[in-house]
Amino acid sequence: MEKLNIWRNIENVKQSSPLVHNITNYVAMNNTANALLASGASPVMAHAEEEVEGMVTISGALVINIGTLSRHWVAAMKKALIKARLLNKPVILDPVGAGATSYRNRMLAELLETGKFSAIRANASEILSLASVSHQTKGVDSTNTAEEALKAAQYLSQKYECTISVSGPEDYIINKEKKAKILNGHPIMSKVTAMGCTATAIAGAFLAVEPDTFQAVFSAMAFMGVAGELAAKISKGPGSFQVNFLDKLYNISKDEFLTTIKFSNYEY
Amino acid sequence: MEKLNIWRNIENVKQSSPLVHNITNYVAMNNTANALLASGASPVMAHAEEEVEGMVTISGALVINIGTLSRHWVAAMKKALIKARLLNKPVILDPVGAGATSYRNRMLAELLETGKFSAIRANASEILSLASVSHQTKGVDSTNTAEEALKAAQYLSQKYECTISVSGPEDYIINKEKKAKILNGHPIMSKVTAMGCTATAIAGAFLAVEPDTFQAVFSAMAFMGVAGELAAKISKGPGSFQVNFLDKLYNISKDEFLTTIKFSNYEY
Amino acid sequence: MEKLNIWRNIENVKQSSPLVHNITNYVAMNNTANALLASGASPVMAHAEEEVEGMVTISGALVINIGTLSRHWVAAMKKALIKARLLNKPVILDPVGAGATSYRNRMLAELLETGKFSAIRANASEILSLASVSHQTKGVDSTNTAEEALKAAQYLSQKYECTISVSGPEDYIINKEKKAKILNGHPIMSKVTAMGCTATAIAGAFLAVEPDTFQAVFSAMAFMGVAGELAAKISKGPGSFQVNFLDKLYNISKDEFLTTIKFSNYEY
Repeated sequence: MEKLNIWRNIENVKQSSPLVHNITNYVAMNNTANALLASGASPVMAHAEEEVEGMVTISGALVINIGTLSRHWVAAMKKALIKARLLNKPVILDPVGAGATSYRNRMLAELLETGKFSAIRANASEILSLASVSHQTKGVDSTNTAEEALKAAQYLSQKYECTISVSGPEDYIINKEKKAKILNGHPIMSKVTAMGCTATAIAGAFLAVEPDTFQAVFSAMAFMGVAGELAAKISKGPGSFQVNFLDKLYNISKDEFLTTIKFSNYEY
Repeated sequence: MEKLNIWRNIENVKQSSPLVHNITNYVAMNNTANALLASGASPVMAHAEEEVEGMVTISGALVINIGTLSRHWVAAMKKALIKARLLNKPVILDPVGAGATSYRNRMLAELLETGKFSAIRANASEILSLASVSHQTKGVDSTNTAEEALKAAQYLSQKYECTISVSGPEDYIINKEKKAKILNGHPIMSKVTAMGCTATAIAGAFLAVEPDTFQAVFSAMAFMGVAGELAAKISKGPGSFQVNFLDKLYNISKDEFLTTIKFSNYEY
Repeated sequence: MEKLNIWRNIENVKQSSPLVHNITNYVAMNNTANALLASGASPVMAHAEEEVEGMVTISGALVINIGTLSRHWVAAMKKALIKARLLNKPVILDPVGAGATSYRNRMLAELLETGKFSAIRANASEILSLASVSHQTKGVDSTNTAEEALKAAQYLSQKYECTISVSGPEDYIINKEKKAKILNGHPIMSKVTAMGCTATAIAGAFLAVEPDTFQAVFSAMAFMGVAGELAAKISKGPGSFQVNFLDKLYNISKDEFLTTIKFSNYEY
C-alpha cells in the first residue's frame, strides 16, 4: 500500500463524513463517538431491537463490539447483522475479552454464524481465542505468542473471508493473500481504556468509504497509530494523552502524517 | 432579556445547586454529569422503574433524553413524566435522533402524550421531525431549512405550551409570543459528542431555579454558547476543547460573560 | 500505618497489575476503567448474569457500585457476590445514593445480606443511610453530622466485619479496632463526577494485592488524596483536573508522594 493512498482514505473520511452505527460497550461509547467525530465521521449509537435495522439501513458501516454484552444486546446485534448482510453493508467485529468466559465465546460463535464480517480487530490473545472457538479445539491458544496469533489471524481471514487486524506494540493487518505491519503507536495507549474499541470504530468509518477491506483497515490502523504516536510525544500521562489524541485525529496534517507513518508490506 | 438577568440566573444555579434528575443516554451521561457539576448543579442519573418516581420527588427538574432509548428506559421515562406532571416539576426533552427510525418517532409521540414539558431542545432536523410526528403529516419536513425549523418550533411551542430551543450555528429560543437568537458558540462544538445533550441538561438546571421557561432556557443556552466560545479560543481540537469547556463552565467570570454574550430579541 | 508501607502498596498495584472486576454504574465506568489503568491495575467491566461468575473467578477483586442500578444488574451483582464469597475474593461496596429512594435501600439490604464485603466506601450521608438500613431504625440518620457518620461507620465495620471508608473533606478509614484520618485531597474533586466511584474502584485494586483490608483501603485513599491534591495544584477547573489526575495516578513519584501525604492514626 502507498502512503499517499492511506492519506487519501483519511481525507475521504473527513470529506464524506460517513454515518457509522455502533452497537458497542458502555465503557467505550463516549470515547468512540468522540474519536469518530474528531476523525470526521458521524457516529450513531443505538441498540434497541426495535430500531437497529432502521439504523443499519441509513448507516455506511456497522460496528459490533461485545465489551459489556448481555442478552438483549446480543439479540439486537444479530438483528443488525442480518440486516447489514442483506444490504451488503460493511461490518467490523471487536471481540473484546474473547476467551475470558464461556458465555463470551458462545456469543461470539453465534455472532460469527449470523453476520458477514468485513473485518475483525482484536489483540493477540483475543484473536487466538477466536480462532480456537472457530476451530473447536484448544490447540491454537496453547502458546500465546505473537507468531501464533498471526497464524490464527490468517486462519480466521480465510475462514470468514475478511481482513483481520491484530493490535499490539506492532499492528498487523492480514487477509488471505497479504499482510502488513504498522510500526507506529506508543505504549501509553495501553494505559487508556477503549483504545482498541476506538481503533475498531475508526476502521468502521474507513470501511464505509473504502470498499477494499484490507486497504480500509490498514488506513484506519495507520491513522490511529500515527495520531497516537504524535499525541504521546506531547503528553505527560494517560489523561493528557486522551486530550492530545482527539486533537490530533482532528488536526493531523498531511505532512506530519507522511513523515511519521512506518510500515511494511508482505505477500505470502 | 437583559444581560444582567442572564448572569443572575447563572449565579442562581451556582448558589442553589439544584438537583437535576437525568434519564439520559449512555454516551452523554458522564459529560452531562460533569457539565452540571461544573455549572454548580447536582446531577443524579437513575432509570430503574422502581425508583424514578422517588428521584423526581426529590429533584428540582427532570431531563428526558432518548439518545440510546430501549423498552425499559421508555417505561421509566413515562413513570417519571407522570410523577413530574403530578408534582408540577419542570421537565425538558431532548429528542435525540428524532426522525432517524420509526421506533424513535413512535416513542417520542408517546412521551409527548404522557408528559407535560416545560421545554424541548434539539437541532433543526430533530425539531422538523418532531413537528412532523405531532402533525401527522410529512409536509413539515419537506425542506430541511433553518427557516422551516423555526416555523416548526413555533408550532411545537404552541401545541405543547412550552419553550423550544433550536440549536445550531445560531441558537434560537422560541415560545408562542417571542423569539431570541444567540450568536455565541463555535463550530468545534459540533465535533464533540453529547454537546447538545449537555445543553439540554444545563437547561434542566436553569429550569429548576427560574420559573419563566423562556428565560431559563435562554440563560442556559447563553451560558453554553459563551463558555463554548471562550473555551474554543484556547483549544487545539475537540479534546482540549472538552477540558477547557468544563473549566470555563466552572470559572467563568461576570465580566467575561457580559463582554462575550451576543443575542437579539424579537416579538412576533 | 507507615508512609513507606503505603507507598509499597502503590508499587505493588503497579507491579502486579491485578484484574479488578467492576459491576458499576454507567456514569463511572469509563472514569474508573481509566483510573485503574493509570494506577497500574487491569479493569474488567462485565454485568451479564451468564458470565459474572466466570469473571469473578479470574479476578483479584470485585467492585460493586449501585449508582445506576436496575433489576438485572442487581441479579448479576448477587451472583457475583455469591461466587466471590465462595472463592474468598475481596469485595468492596459503593452504596451510591443510599437513602435517596426506598428501592435503593432495599437493594442495598439484599446485597449486604448476600455478599461478604471486605470494605465499604461512601460519603457521610450514604454511611448514615446504610447504618440506618441495617439498623431498622431511623434514629441514626437524624443528625447528618460527620461525628454521627463516624459512629455509623464504626457500627457498620463491626456488623459486617469489614473496613469502612467515609469520604469527604477529610477521609476516614475505620475498622472495629482502629481509625485513620487522611488530610489530602482538594475541594475541586467534588465538582467531578464519579470521583467517589473511582476511589472505590482503586480500593478494589489495593484489596487484590494487600490482604489486610484496613491497610489496603487506607493506602488506596491516600493514593487518591495525594494524586488529587497534586493534580488540583496545576488545574484551572474540573476539566483540567480530570486530565491531571489521571496523569498523576500514572506518574506519581515516591518523593512527591512521601512529602505530600498527611494522615493521623487512632486506636479506640
